[in-house]
Amino acid sequence: MAPFYDSIERPTLLLDAARARRNITRMAEKAQRNQLRFRPHFKTHQSAAVGEWFREAGVTAATVSSLEMAHYFAEHGWNDLTVAFPANLRQIHLINALAQRVHLQLLVEHPVAAQFLATHLTAPAGIWIEVDAGYARSGLRWNDRAQLTALARTLADCPTLSLRGLLTHAGNTYAARSPAELATAYQSTVDRLNDARTWLATEGFPGLEISIGDTPACSVLDDLGAVDEIRPGNFVFYDWMQVEIGACHADDVATVVACPVVSIHPERNDLILYGGAVHLSKESLLSRKGQLTFGAVVLLTEQGWSAPLEDVWVRSVSQEHGVVHAEGAAFATLLHTAQVGGLLGVLPVHSCLTADLFKQYRTLEGQTLSMAPIPGSLG
Amino acid sequence: MAPFYDSIERPTLLLDAARARRNITRMAEKAQRNQLRFRPHFKTHQSAAVGEWFREAGVTAATVSSLEMAHYFAEHGWNDLTVAFPANLRQIHLINALAQRVHLQLLVEHPVAAQFLATHLTAPAGIWIEVDAGYARSGLRWNDRAQLTALARTLADCPTLSLRGLLTHAGNTYAARSPAELATAYQSTVDRLNDARTWLATEGFPGLEISIGDTPACSVLDDLGAVDEIRPGNFVFYDWMQVEIGACHADDVATVVACPVVSIHPERNDLILYGGAVHLSKESLLSRKGQLTFGAVVLLTEQGWSAPLEDVWVRSVSQEHGVVHAEGAAFATLLHTAQVGGLLGVLPVHSCLTADLFKQYRTLEGQTLSMAPIPGSLG
Repeated sequence: MAPFYDSIERPTLLLDAARARRNITRMAEKAQRNQLRFRPHFKTHQSAAVGEWFREAGVTAATVSSLEMAHYFAEHGWNDLTVAFPANLRQIHLINALAQRVHLQLLVEHPVAAQFLATHLTAPAGIWIEVDAGYARSGLRWNDRAQLTALARTLADCPTLSLRGLLTHAGNTYAARSPAELATAYQSTVDRLNDARTWLATEGFPGLEISIGDTPACSVLDDLGAVDEIRPGNFVFYDWMQVEIGACHADDVATVVACPVVSIHPERNDLILYGGAVHLSKESLLSRKGQLTFGAVVLLTEQGWSAPLEDVWVRSVSQEHGVVHAEGAAFATLLHTAQVGGLLGVLPVHSCLTADLFKQYRTLEGQTLSMAPIPGSLG
Repeated sequence: MAPFYDSIERPTLLLDAARARRNITRMAEKAQRNQLRFRPHFKTHQSAAVGEWFREAGVTAATVSSLEMAHYFAEHGWNDLTVAFPANLRQIHLINALAQRVHLQLLVEHPVAAQFLATHLTAPAGIWIEVDAGYARSGLRWNDRAQLTALARTLADCPTLSLRGLLTHAGNTYAARSPAELATAYQSTVDRLNDARTWLATEGFPGLEISIGDTPACSVLDDLGAVDEIRPGNFVFYDWMQVEIGACHADDVATVVACPVVSIHPERNDLILYGGAVHLSKESLLSRKGQLTFGAVVLLTEQGWSAPLEDVWVRSVSQEHGVVHAEGAAFATLLHTAQVGGLLGVLPVHSCLTADLFKQYRTLEGQTLSMAPIPGSLG
């Protein structure tokens, strides 16, 4: 094990900085090859230190998921920020403070929000119409032409608002389980956004951009098609979900939770970890083998951690407990290394939620990297 | 709406102090009627201020789920604490510091842990053998008599350790969906613990106590049977899961997340909330009507909040988004009140995880109550 692992006493979020930097470089290069603006989503890492690695890769624009996160990164020198969440009108004073300070872009999808911003915004902001291209979370449906036009008109009437384009989160790529399925889902999204763009051009709103963001498509596809901007976020760390989707290899995953082993139950091939829902989150997935999984299991090594162990997985979590199960021979093998008082690593199912719970990282060099504070502590 | 609701800008965890105090009083009285020690689990609220309400109800002993939480409550004057989690040997220095300062009780279920504590503990601590009475999380199986005896012998050999009794978390009551099912599950657990107690008495370890803790059984049953201590935790706030189980009524639930409404989609009866997995957690349940539910929905009122709305529920969450769905007429009714820029309330599925994410409460009187800091910030 890396020397400082001996000092780990409780569940600790480890970060392999070299892997994260490699993930960043790879995606930045792909954006460049596709001649796209790269505006990575920072909600995954929420850390100014990790933001610096993006800056070193030439990135100057970022996406965030809350105004508090925008404030945090503005404090750390980021001055071109898109808040990729429908504008929260109750925070208009924070929106105005940010619009005065940085190049702020907001999302609008509802006429009430457009009207409110048109009358309450005191500094200029770029506006993206959020489009639902089939995922059915937030966004105006791509083929709701009357609403698209009405929204664009409301926005055009206001001098502080400048309509930049159409933005979507193509969350449906997460359901794909092969590159072909993924390419089809992505292409459908791009086509629908381009339909909406063409429509708005004929309605007198030419030159709109298209912004799209999801880690699976941006990772797997070489040609990102007729779009202007990509906003993937998760790729900086990846996670077990992305491995299962096929968006990355297990050795691209840059975070692992080091968990103390507190008990072993040979009678049922289980091992009890100090590491539960308040560390990993309750995100789960059904593995290709049909196992409900709250995390993959790795051994901690001199260099970081091993490949995920075959037939070993976190089968349940409660507030502080994680129960690791190993099938057949895998349990015997696991017992060669695992012992009460030792450590095991868990590759999280969803690294964004896991990072959000820890609020800090420990790099393999033993350095602690801090993250944005919990919102609500801000003014 | 209560006057201060106007000032709520972002997802905010509301706490109805009167309901929480009523829940506390009711459980304290039940423990008294049953002549049991009441050692409530503080992992649900994690707040010194809420701890004071317990103290006012005559409570002097508490349960926590981590050594950091024990440290926090020790700082706030609690000196009789059980850490209801298998002893984490990697934190032996914190165990020793706490054992020196308060009446500390630890859980042991593995011979390696017993041996380690016997040789490394520098101040006296009470020890409970954690017993698995059928839930298959942590604990020694109730009928594994050889191991029970071996563990008791190891503990008896060490002067700093005093064996107090047998402890279990009867998590299987959470699967019950009627008082009769619940009573059966609880009785089976109590019988199994008493079997183990009788066995150990014949092996030369008489006078052991039995400690049991789960909110559903402690809430529903009048007679808690042949046990010495109860450790329920969730009952202080309850949540939507407990309502579905039948452990409480909806008007016993003492916490709600106030969420800004950021969009409305009449074409699919959906409403988008600022309130997602980083606020509510990803805990879900399948409702009696077969709906996958991430929270029940209430209206915020002058007095606090309304009863949960029929046929309205949080159907999905992502990092910051919550999608509320309403069936048929319920959607039209919801639109009488809900508007973009307004607030809706969400009764969490699992209040322990939701509270852990917020790290603070806002009472209906507008007061902010803080919680234990994120572990890791300690020493």
